[in-house]
Amino acid sequence: MAMRESTSTLLVIGLGLLGGSVLRAARKANLYAHYLGFDARPDVVANAQRLNITDNASGELDELAQQADLIVIAVPVLAISEIFQKLRHANAPDRYITDVASVKLPIVEAARQGSEAPPAQFVPAHPITGSEQSGLAAAQADLFTAHKVIVTPHEHTDAAALAYVSEFWSALGAEVVTMDAATHDAILAKTSHLPHVLAYVLVNTLLAQPDADNVFDFAAGGFRDFSRIASSDPTMWHDILLANKQAVLVAIEQFENELQTTRHAIEQDDGDALFKLLTEAKTARDTRVVLTVDGDKGAV
Amino acid sequence: MAMRESTSTLLVIGLGLLGGSVLRAARKANLYAHYLGFDARPDVVANAQRLNITDNASGELDELAQQADLIVIAVPVLAISEIFQKLRHANAPDRYITDVASVKLPIVEAARQGSEAPPAQFVPAHPITGSEQSGLAAAQADLFTAHKVIVTPHEHTDAAALAYVSEFWSALGAEVVTMDAATHDAILAKTSHLPHVLAYVLVNTLLAQPDADNVFDFAAGGFRDFSRIASSDPTMWHDILLANKQAVLVAIEQFENELQTTRHAIEQDDGDALFKLLTEAKTARDTRVVLTVDGDKGAV
Repeated sequence: MAMRESTSTLLVIGLGLLGGSVLRAARKANLYAHYLGFDARPDVVANAQRLNITDNASGELDELAQQADLIVIAVPVLAISEIFQKLRHANAPDRYITDVASVKLPIVEAARQGSEAPPAQFVPAHPITGSEQSGLAAAQADLFTAHKVIVTPHEHTDAAALAYVSEFWSALGAEVVTMDAATHDAILAKTSHLPHVLAYVLVNTLLAQPDADNVFDFAAGGFRDFSRIASSDPTMWHDILLANKQAVLVAIEQFENELQTTRHAIEQDDGDALFKLLTEAKTARDTRVVLTVDGDKGAV
Repeated sequence: MAMRESTSTLLVIGLGLLGGSVLRAARKANLYAHYLGFDARPDVVANAQRLNITDNASGELDELAQQADLIVIAVPVLAISEIFQKLRHANAPDRYITDVASVKLPIVEAARQGSEAPPAQFVPAHPITGSEQSGLAAAQADLFTAHKVIVTPHEHTDAAALAYVSEFWSALGAEVVTMDAATHDAILAKTSHLPHVLAYVLVNTLLAQPDADNVFDFAAGGFRDFSRIASSDPTMWHDILLANKQAVLVAIEQFENELQTTRHAIEQDDGDALFKLLTEAKTARDTRVVLTVDGDKGAV
């Protein structure tokens, strides 16, 4: 079961940006002897082989799963439940399993469905990286380098599985941080899911203008940066926002309250209050937001 | 009065990022024989001379103004009224004047104060560029290259002044676009002022969390990009938001309505509506936002 052995095998299910990057990164670190990929889209499977992201081996999910030491699930959030059902049928109980989803409580619940508990070998994980790009062609071997990966072991997670999966993500260059799934989901609702909602909504606000053409013509750098994440994959974000619904709604409400405060200061011409709000934000942005990677374009 | 003559002189009032960049760009294009700068802060005036941004000449504003062919006003929005009063006292009626402010109706009003009409030589302008950085040290000669500059002549603007100022901005590498001041202010409220409000408010939303430290630690690339403009100068943005108050409040209200629509789709688990909203935004972002300059970090 160890990495770096002559028969060791990695299987990634879902060959998009993140799944492809996991394979590229593991291959670059020389962690396994065999690299397998599964995707419901045959053209994507063929592409992965042509790009040398996976070995020239394909097959049904259950056959592939039985060959794997580690299975990384990298499909959209709402498709994960079905993958766990298939893995249970594949009867590969001692394979380590991790995932890359941006929400964690719903994934633990998906892993539990139809059984008393989620698999003890399953260690939920979320790499805090990504891109507004999507798809296999955008996969990069260094996507995880110097980025955080949050692992959220559930109450039945086996200690050996936690150690193995943590070592795996570290070996891809990531800094592994452990927390519980609920805390993860509440934090990411604010730092990632809320900004995505705001970016999509801002673009739609401009689009709703009668003079939308003019408006987009004069979109400046601030707008372009701000709205970049609105280019993210709608299927992925549809799934995340619905899966993490409660925490996302709380984050939206907190944002709305804060927007009211700023709006009120403008309405009332309260220059002192407005200046204080802007200065506090600038200070926090300048001092508290850690820019881990130069030119980092991570979007998740 | 022509550019590129042996006695021609440029005066920039306000030696921050934009004022400094105007001087650097004009010098690089070899537009004038003399480059003068005025700033209320003596250390900034000294810095501008040491950095070769201005010539080794300083003095009172009225003396400098009388030497200038073109005066570029680049002070914060709410300080512009005072500058126009001083220029009127300087009795330099035939100098061309332009500015760089992000709002235009309030600037025309400031130019009118204490007189029947704004100066006929005044051609209001707004370069759609900038940076979340501020200050003279960040000034760049190519800040205007391939960026739009919107000029908004008022009803008394002289045709020769409009031609001269337009030629000036073109000579700095910009694409000059003409529109009326009210249209400018309404468009920029949506494409620039609103995104800045949202970025400041987002940072303050995170700051208000009891677990703010944790939250900022896990701020991902999307958050970093999104909140970059919250690093912008609070004095500048305080002035812009109050000066363009009515248009900014309209933009905030339109955003709030659009946010309600998206929030409702999430609350109701209306996956079809949510997917449609996200897809429309992605399509608009991908197809309608023109990325004029590679790696552009313009923030205004």
